Amino acid sequence: MNKNTLTFIGCDADYAEADIVLCGIPFDGTTSFRPGARFGPASIRGDSFGIETYSPYCERVLNDIRVFDAGDLDLPFGNPQSMLTLTQERVAAFLADGKRPVLLGGEHLITLGAIRACQRRYPDLAVLHMDAHADLRTDYLGEPLSHACVLRRVWDLLGDGRIHQFGIRSGERAEFAFAAQHTHMQRFTLDGFSDVLQSLGNTPVYLTLDLDVLDPSEFCGTGTPEAGGVRFIELLACILQLHRVNLIGADVVELSPHYDPSGASTAAACKIVREILLQIKGA
Amino acid sequence: MNKNTLTFIGCDADYAEADIVLCGIPFDGTTSFRPGARFGPASIRGDSFGIETYSPYCERVLNDIRVFDAGDLDLPFGNPQSMLTLTQERVAAFLADGKRPVLLGGEHLITLGAIRACQRRYPDLAVLHMDAHADLRTDYLGEPLSHACVLRRVWDLLGDGRIHQFGIRSGERAEFAFAAQHTHMQRFTLDGFSDVLQSLGNTPVYLTLDLDVLDPSEFCGTGTPEAGGVRFIELLACILQLHRVNLIGADVVELSPHYDPSGASTAAACKIVREILLQIKGA
Amino acid sequence: MNKNTLTFIGCDADYAEADIVLCGIPFDGTTSFRPGARFGPASIRGDSFGIETYSPYCERVLNDIRVFDAGDLDLPFGNPQSMLTLTQERVAAFLADGKRPVLLGGEHLITLGAIRACQRRYPDLAVLHMDAHADLRTDYLGEPLSHACVLRRVWDLLGDGRIHQFGIRSGERAEFAFAAQHTHMQRFTLDGFSDVLQSLGNTPVYLTLDLDVLDPSEFCGTGTPEAGGVRFIELLACILQLHRVNLIGADVVELSPHYDPSGASTAAACKIVREILLQIKGA
Amino acid sequence: MNKNTLTFIGCDADYAEADIVLCGIPFDGTTSFRPGARFGPASIRGDSFGIETYSPYCERVLNDIRVFDAGDLDLPFGNPQSMLTLTQERVAAFLADGKRPVLLGGEHLITLGAIRACQRRYPDLAVLHMDAHADLRTDYLGEPLSHACVLRRVWDLLGDGRIHQFGIRSGERAEFAFAAQHTHMQRFTLDGFSDVLQSLGNTPVYLTLDLDVLDPSEFCGTGTPEAGGVRFIELLACILQLHRVNLIGADVVELSPHYDPSGASTAAACKIVREILLQIKGA
Amino acid sequence: MNKNTLTFIGCDADYAEADIVLCGIPFDGTTSFRPGARFGPASIRGDSFGIETYSPYCERVLNDIRVFDAGDLDLPFGNPQSMLTLTQERVAAFLADGKRPVLLGGEHLITLGAIRACQRRYPDLAVLHMDAHADLRTDYLGEPLSHACVLRRVWDLLGDGRIHQFGIRSGERAEFAFAAQHTHMQRFTLDGFSDVLQSLGNTPVYLTLDLDVLDPSEFCGTGTPEAGGVRFIELLACILQLHRVNLIGADVVELSPHYDPSGASTAAACKIVREILLQIKGA
Amino acid sequence: MNKNTLTFIGCDADYAEADIVLCGIPFDGTTSFRPGARFGPASIRGDSFGIETYSPYCERVLNDIRVFDAGDLDLPFGNPQSMLTLTQERVAAFLADGKRPVLLGGEHLITLGAIRACQRRYPDLAVLHMDAHADLRTDYLGEPLSHACVLRRVWDLLGDGRIHQFGIRSGERAEFAFAAQHTHMQRFTLDGFSDVLQSLGNTPVYLTLDLDVLDPSEFCGTGTPEAGGVRFIELLACILQLHRVNLIGADVVELSPHYDPSGASTAAACKIVREILLQIKGA
Repeated sequence: MNKNTLTFIGCDADYAEADIVLCGIPFDGTTSFRPGARFGPASIRGDSFGIETYSPYCERVLNDIRVFDAGDLDLPFGNPQSMLTLTQERVAAFLADGKRPVLLGGEHLITLGAIRACQRRYPDLAVLHMDAHADLRTDYLGEPLSHACVLRRVWDLLGDGRIHQFGIRSGERAEFAFAAQHTHMQRFTLDGFSDVLQSLGNTPVYLTLDLDVLDPSEFCGTGTPEAGGVRFIELLACILQLHRVNLIGADVVELSPHYDPSGASTAAACKIVREILLQIKGA
Repeated sequence: MNKNTLTFIGCDADYAEADIVLCGIPFDGTTSFRPGARFGPASIRGDSFGIETYSPYCERVLNDIRVFDAGDLDLPFGNPQSMLTLTQERVAAFLADGKRPVLLGGEHLITLGAIRACQRRYPDLAVLHMDAHADLRTDYLGEPLSHACVLRRVWDLLGDGRIHQFGIRSGERAEFAFAAQHTHMQRFTLDGFSDVLQSLGNTPVYLTLDLDVLDPSEFCGTGTPEAGGVRFIELLACILQLHRVNLIGADVVELSPHYDPSGASTAAACKIVREILLQIKGA
Repeated sequence: MNKNTLTFIGCDADYAEADIVLCGIPFDGTTSFRPGARFGPASIRGDSFGIETYSPYCERVLNDIRVFDAGDLDLPFGNPQSMLTLTQERVAAFLADGKRPVLLGGEHLITLGAIRACQRRYPDLAVLHMDAHADLRTDYLGEPLSHACVLRRVWDLLGDGRIHQFGIRSGERAEFAFAAQHTHMQRFTLDGFSDVLQSLGNTPVYLTLDLDVLDPSEFCGTGTPEAGGVRFIELLACILQLHRVNLIGADVVELSPHYDPSGASTAAACKIVREILLQIKGA
Repeated sequence: MNKNTLTFIGCDADYAEADIVLCGIPFDGTTSFRPGARFGPASIRGDSFGIETYSPYCERVLNDIRVFDAGDLDLPFGNPQSMLTLTQERVAAFLADGKRPVLLGGEHLITLGAIRACQRRYPDLAVLHMDAHADLRTDYLGEPLSHACVLRRVWDLLGDGRIHQFGIRSGERAEFAFAAQHTHMQRFTLDGFSDVLQSLGNTPVYLTLDLDVLDPSEFCGTGTPEAGGVRFIELLACILQLHRVNLIGADVVELSPHYDPSGASTAAACKIVREILLQIKGA
Repeated sequence: MNKNTLTFIGCDADYAEADIVLCGIPFDGTTSFRPGARFGPASIRGDSFGIETYSPYCERVLNDIRVFDAGDLDLPFGNPQSMLTLTQERVAAFLADGKRPVLLGGEHLITLGAIRACQRRYPDLAVLHMDAHADLRTDYLGEPLSHACVLRRVWDLLGDGRIHQFGIRSGERAEFAFAAQHTHMQRFTLDGFSDVLQSLGNTPVYLTLDLDVLDPSEFCGTGTPEAGGVRFIELLACILQLHRVNLIGADVVELSPHYDPSGASTAAACKIVREILLQIKGA
Repeated sequence: MNKNTLTFIGCDADYAEADIVLCGIPFDGTTSFRPGARFGPASIRGDSFGIETYSPYCERVLNDIRVFDAGDLDLPFGNPQSMLTLTQERVAAFLADGKRPVLLGGEHLITLGAIRACQRRYPDLAVLHMDAHADLRTDYLGEPLSHACVLRRVWDLLGDGRIHQFGIRSGERAEFAFAAQHTHMQRFTLDGFSDVLQSLGNTPVYLTLDLDVLDPSEFCGTGTPEAGGVRFIELLACILQLHRVNLIGADVVELSPHYDPSGASTAAACKIVREILLQIKGA
């Protein structure tokens, strides 16, 4: 008799046979406004049983692909450096084993650990970034390692022209000015997402999806709700095109489930995770 | 001095004079994910006083029509068979008295009891079904009497071509395959609703409206929120055409008010109930 | 060392130098359905630190303009007359000092106190009114001083042709009939807002924004949620045109934060206040 | 077929035969901190079906006595004077018909209306007052008609030695000084309650029970929770002695159910109402 | 690499070596008032990481004993008969393997399935029952298989003198009369618990703990909160004596976590489960 | 006209004249289970207006003493080291100016910063520690600077015999063993508090009060509720004796207000802060 297991619905492959690995990073230590994203991975796994394994959008079933759910990383509390090191090591191990990692946040800073590992293996990595916030600050109240700076730290690694930002509707004036010089930024909407996919060809791509890109009406379970976001069906339309690129990893961050007692935010996150998994080529 | 009465706003006709009868079926015994729909009818009655009796959409007032609010059915707990029998008997009695029943759920299984009664009286009955979920399973974990199978049980009664489904965005692969053969199903949207009404002519029509057809942004107070739904104004546009058909009964199900502490879901349900009542021909 | 101050983010001008004055009116004494709007001003100030001072919509920063936050009016409880008198006196004082007042409600009745003061100073005042409810009743259960009558009381002051209503989707039949004769009313939507601004030329304008004009999906933190409202981005598009008129005062009312535990309603209110402040000419 | 009725559980006598009349006064217009007591009566009726009609404490059943539930008073909003007049008239009518009124608040100011009626009929009336707050202010921010002044207004009517206060643990210094002169006040506890009952003999007694006398641990659903209160079983022990006096009326006030999402506060209120009803002599 | 496991904290023994087996029964199909107990087991496992494995009360550590967490039973929805059969089979299997089962409810009806299995193996079984409610009805609205009848069904199996009830404070008159004849019932308190343990000697004992025996102040996360319960430390004092009897099985039921957003109810349940596990003799 | 100030009720002295300084430390970066204590200070200030300035317990009024409310420390997020340095500096400055600091947490780690400053000024400092948790770990998952280690870090500074712990009911076996050697620990209760005060004579004393020492029934708004705590009136009885010692500073930590939507936890914290302020000698 086996111990009680709890995985995302339909993700019950063994590690050896899996093409994709799910892993939770329950960290929210640098959250500036309202913490709670640490509860994201457990909430997504638990409520995933409220959705189906079948997607009527792409007409595929999770059981047809092979996903291993590795559970959550064990993390010390209050130490961003440790979290980044542990995340990088774990992602590097997944990549070395030929797996495609899909991370469940946690706050947005976790992305830096993942991209450090991906960039080592894929030096020509491109990043798709969907978010309400630019996250391009040099530092946040003196701290360079903060969720509000994470895309700036990614730029430190990748340089100009590698980062494609969509849905951005909040930031300091200086962040928008930086983006005009150094990233591709689509403000307010997801317009142009399809063209960017077209341009990426075979480039290895990492998707970082901060769920607060969604309008708070459809996703209020997050630390910093920001009115005027994109609609779920607009986001879904983008996700349904991801099979066109060479997606080598992804993360879905900033679900803070306690702020949405209805569970609708978690349910939306579950559906998005399902659709991303079903889009990964070769899986 | 009369005992304290509590009816839906503006529904204070006596039974004898009423054309329409409201009745609550506070049952949620087969709910698979999150129960609570049993609290729907009481919540709708109580919060109906937050809306007006006048509809600026169809420019009619509830007080102009004659609706009797029969309160809720008394039900044993945990026995779907009893609930179905009692619902069928009550609806049959309303029909025998020349009334048009509008039921307030409760979970979706209640619809089966109502349609059993309606189909006996109107053998050529057609069903309009708005829902996020196909509800076409043969059984659910071995149980044939479950909210997840209710439209399949209705099909057992009515056969091919009698069921028109709209807004469906979740189900197993087999349910969508079944629908392709045996029902008319519009996936994701309400497109084509007007054409279906046109085609129905004088056929007696029963409307079953699972409120989770709405996007969770506009209706999160339900057991299984499913992202990507239709908007309230889209649903309202359909409802405002119902006077074009011979609507002989209706139900509004799956409000689970505890999951939406803001009350917005209940308020939306109240408004939908008002508009349905005002659309019933002859009333 | 200064005592602890709490102002809306970026509103730290001194009174003498300020062009705009923010002031809270924490009153909800005539609320008919669900009270709580008294907590609006404190909630808006506290959560304003979750948004930025920079607006990527109009590309301005709050720190570039001069706004003084006067805190909340001290009010006796349960006395609408006193509230109106105190509000009128305070607004009159701001106007006399050459400031443009922006009031944070509180329920909608507060608007009457403000407009009394504004109309004395600007006898040709026009009013822009965005709301789910017509608020044109003669009285409400016998009371002429009620949030449900406030625009009728304003009409008593200003007369025909001075009131422009948008987004109205609820009211009694008689209110809609009154509007057809005496106000300009756009039902359901914000269509025509731009044309009305055009027509106002240099007329002094007061904006009263009942936040329940928004769809409850985007703003459920209010006493009387009413389905079928306008979207945040539609409202924002209107607000971004306000620099075209001579806006001499404004209020933002009916946030009742306890009904939205996610904080999304308060966050939306904060963003709307920021954008209104940035639109005021001369500031 | 009867319209839907909703009464407190087991309170289904007709008016003519009833000894006791339940009546809700859904008013919270002078609440100073957090409103919501207007929802008390509806919440108590609805949740009363979660308790039994039988009391194992006094071994009586509600069905053995005759209670009529008159529903709620229709009240204009925001007008304390009207509420007081309407309450006084209604209570006077009940008394004139030989009934003993039990009122469900609403806020504490409603007590003044009831006692005005009772005192006219019973000039030697004594009042039992259980509360966290002294409610003995002369006025509250200038208003003499406020929940915070209600026992002072009662004293204006009844004079010295007629008011017995228990459990008081909050107030201004002046209120405690006033009590030392003019009322019998037991601070912090219910000690001495039994002796007071003994001393009352056949005097007609009105009980006003502000539920916030309970510790917030057992009753958090109230506008102004005040730590350090009495326990439910202590309060119950007092109530179980009420048959020893000539209780001619009572009220139970300040349940504000939205603040306790667990429903435990409402459940406690229901149980207290049941026990008070069962203690009324002659019923 | 292992799939993600989720067990109660410190319960990570393999099945073969375990003395105790934890198993969840997520069923709430006959709940009469407010459902949600199905979420109990998952909530207890998840929040168990907020407590320690060490008990300062009995000075033992969970890691010192051997507990296997078998996860939850897979159950069809809305079918009490199936649930009882499956529970009985599972418990019988545990007993056959020499394990002591500790079940996590779910509603109280689950106890019947467990006791059916235990009574077959231990015909002289005695039952310790802690609860707010007598649960001794013959039937509930015609249903004999209901949480409100569960101890009556147990009595059908065991007969007079085998059931020891504590803390009972709610029920119909007939239930209390039945108890006076057929069970040992301590009303309102846990008085006499120690004496009962003493009297049990080596009799095999099953403990069924309905957590609503606790006062709602300490445990509001339950379907039917009933004021006037026992305190946690009183309950704990009883549990700490359980090593004195031959405890062959136990259940902890009626946590409905959604009703207590603070998490305190779940935390209390976790601590109680820990202490029961540490009391089981031979483990 | 002054900018909007927000202080704890009755704490409106200027800095120069003040004897006591209130200061918030809104940090929760090392919280292991559920974050949110960062919202403690703002919540305490805002809700302090729900209590009175007068204490009927010690019969003093806040306006009689001189307290300055310095607002909150500005802190970088996610950096415990910076928080400790900034807290230490601020407390040192208060002490240098002859003020007695009372800090509002935030999580328990903040205490280390305060005690570092106090110990420099008062090398013979003694610490009174009330808490559910021992907080004596060497490290927590490798981190020595964690709320779960804070008293161990204080012991590093002060050494044996200086720390008096009360109410402790959770910890690892090793922490209880450590306490037996190096601190004075009263498990489970506050017994002996009075004797310890007696023994302290004129020793400078710092009080650190983790509010989770209270039973969750009276204080559920905290990150790690732990059943079986002390009652508010027991804690209050201890606080009311504090004037007997030379209290040179204090903190009140671990209110996490979002977990208690009733507001009762915040109300209890407000009352405790008021009583501590009124006990400080010389103030």
